[in-house]
Amino acid sequence: MTILDYDTVALNEEKNALVIIDQTKLPYSIEILELTDLKEIWDAIYLLKVRGAPAIGVTAAIAIYLEARKIAMEANDFDGFYKKFVEAKEYLDSSRPTAVNLSWALNRMDDVVKKNKDKNVSEIIDILHAEAIEIREEDIRVCKAIGEYGLSLVKPGDGLLTHCNAGQLATVKYGTATAPMYLGHERGYNFRIFADETRPLLQGARLTAFELQSAGMDVTLICDNMSNMVMRNGWVNAIFVGCDRVAANGDVANKIGTSIVATVAKRYNIPFYVCAPTSTIDMNTPTGNEIKIEERKPEEVTEMWYKNRMAPDDVKVFNPAFDVTDNDLVTGIITEYGIAKAPYNESLKEIFAKKQNK
Amino acid sequence: MTILDYDTVALNEEKNALVIIDQTKLPYSIEILELTDLKEIWDAIYLLKVRGAPAIGVTAAIAIYLEARKIAMEANDFDGFYKKFVEAKEYLDSSRPTAVNLSWALNRMDDVVKKNKDKNVSEIIDILHAEAIEIREEDIRVCKAIGEYGLSLVKPGDGLLTHCNAGQLATVKYGTATAPMYLGHERGYNFRIFADETRPLLQGARLTAFELQSAGMDVTLICDNMSNMVMRNGWVNAIFVGCDRVAANGDVANKIGTSIVATVAKRYNIPFYVCAPTSTIDMNTPTGNEIKIEERKPEEVTEMWYKNRMAPDDVKVFNPAFDVTDNDLVTGIITEYGIAKAPYNESLKEIFAKKQNK
Repeated sequence: MTILDYDTVALNEEKNALVIIDQTKLPYSIEILELTDLKEIWDAIYLLKVRGAPAIGVTAAIAIYLEARKIAMEANDFDGFYKKFVEAKEYLDSSRPTAVNLSWALNRMDDVVKKNKDKNVSEIIDILHAEAIEIREEDIRVCKAIGEYGLSLVKPGDGLLTHCNAGQLATVKYGTATAPMYLGHERGYNFRIFADETRPLLQGARLTAFELQSAGMDVTLICDNMSNMVMRNGWVNAIFVGCDRVAANGDVANKIGTSIVATVAKRYNIPFYVCAPTSTIDMNTPTGNEIKIEERKPEEVTEMWYKNRMAPDDVKVFNPAFDVTDNDLVTGIITEYGIAKAPYNESLKEIFAKKQNK
Repeated sequence: MTILDYDTVALNEEKNALVIIDQTKLPYSIEILELTDLKEIWDAIYLLKVRGAPAIGVTAAIAIYLEARKIAMEANDFDGFYKKFVEAKEYLDSSRPTAVNLSWALNRMDDVVKKNKDKNVSEIIDILHAEAIEIREEDIRVCKAIGEYGLSLVKPGDGLLTHCNAGQLATVKYGTATAPMYLGHERGYNFRIFADETRPLLQGARLTAFELQSAGMDVTLICDNMSNMVMRNGWVNAIFVGCDRVAANGDVANKIGTSIVATVAKRYNIPFYVCAPTSTIDMNTPTGNEIKIEERKPEEVTEMWYKNRMAPDDVKVFNPAFDVTDNDLVTGIITEYGIAKAPYNESLKEIFAKKQNK
């Protein structure tokens, strides 16, 4: 049994349960949780048992459907139903207040309820069920489309490098940066993959190396400071990373260290691709300079994970969670509607025009 | 009492003892060891209580002097003395067989004995004492000269960045990459210093941040993958690193990750300086491609330091201890005889001509 026998987030229709992989137990053990209770699901999000913006959004959609189903058993009139629905929604939304996809998914479920308030409650439940399934399927379709576009840029036997975890574990299936790897693996591409460990939180070591190894891929873990060595040795043909936000000019905010990988790649003319669902492209942010970079606590660097504190007491620490990769370092931005290339101010607009016309 | 109240390696003349800081206890506690027994000193080198090529060389010189002193008390004729001297020398040399400076210092002490075999043993002991002191003083002079040349390249208030530990703790005093920082600090330069933590062995976090903080400097610890962020923010005016070997063309082998710092620095036109005693410049190695890079065990990446193993079982790991920084990324190589600039094939020859003429 490997991790790939499971999707990261799913609905068990028979048991009316949310099914997730407990990511706090990875990579030590694969524990599948079947959750039916709203409080349990709130805890699972709060405690990062499920993480990654897309995965959290899907979790919230399934969770609010399951809760609506329970509410409907007791409240048959719309007003009684809706009052409790909104309470449940607000409760769930409080589990990780800064996760955009959480409130996005909950609001989308709420909109469906409001739009159908003239239908009877059991019909509304069916519609909520369909919407939750659709949100989940959409995530898979977006990742798969990114994977297909990404795969068109590489060839069998290529060496690929990724940073952090923009993997299946952050989405329902395939991931974003890892989507070309999964699709290529299914088709016998035999990639040689390098995973940056990604200090300070080690998502590359704990999650990316784990999920790709579980899938049977040839993955090699390196420290973040080793990427020049593997590129200089000629072992890397392309780089795929995810992103937290893309500005209108193609500047990319992603996990700290991403910009270093891009800078080194440029030296060796290795293409550097950013895998970005259109939901992460923010045309209202003109450049990377307007993206506020979250700073996190020093202990992540000096003592988290460690047997002993690994730095002198009271040492000053700078611990930004993200950095900005300037657009001149980005070879292409891979979305579910195609690949944008420089100049990004134009190409990203074209991507959104395509989305509009779908 | 701070670490700077002590030299890394010294001779206590009253107690006839080798004095070292136990580096295996840093940064948790400062423990000063006074060692008189040859076996104890062998253990101290073997267990990395003293580390760094220059520091190990000086340790060996003092240790063999102390042992010769003891031997002389029992053996008054040269042959009896020399037999035991060579035994002690070979024993010490076995403590870290790959450390070049260890056998270099011991051979230099041996040469002095052979050259003076017609003198009586007590005179030879005096000569050995002088030679050990000279080896130690030389190390301080070399580091200080590098520091003065380095300091001429920066100005008060500058932001400086360094990688790994080429600090006082790897030499007797001042260090190499840190020498401009110590000298500048003495003169009120008020540098803002960034120390890369330097995965996987964390010498930057454990040693560099510790010694600079102990000296009262403004030092900020960052993960290796954050250097682009601090350079992009305009916080760094110059970079100083040490080196393990410099090739005749100016390619530099140094701790893994050094080449990434250099690549990022180039993007922002931040000068990248390598601090290299001439003893580390190897004119018989034409380029960096001829330098064999040591690979170390995976556990350094996956479990050393950690409470739990931080990566999946049996994951492949690439763990090179050093990397090569190509000469086009190196702004200058700072030696005790001046600063070499490109083209290095010529400028390094000039450095050695200066050394010859001293």
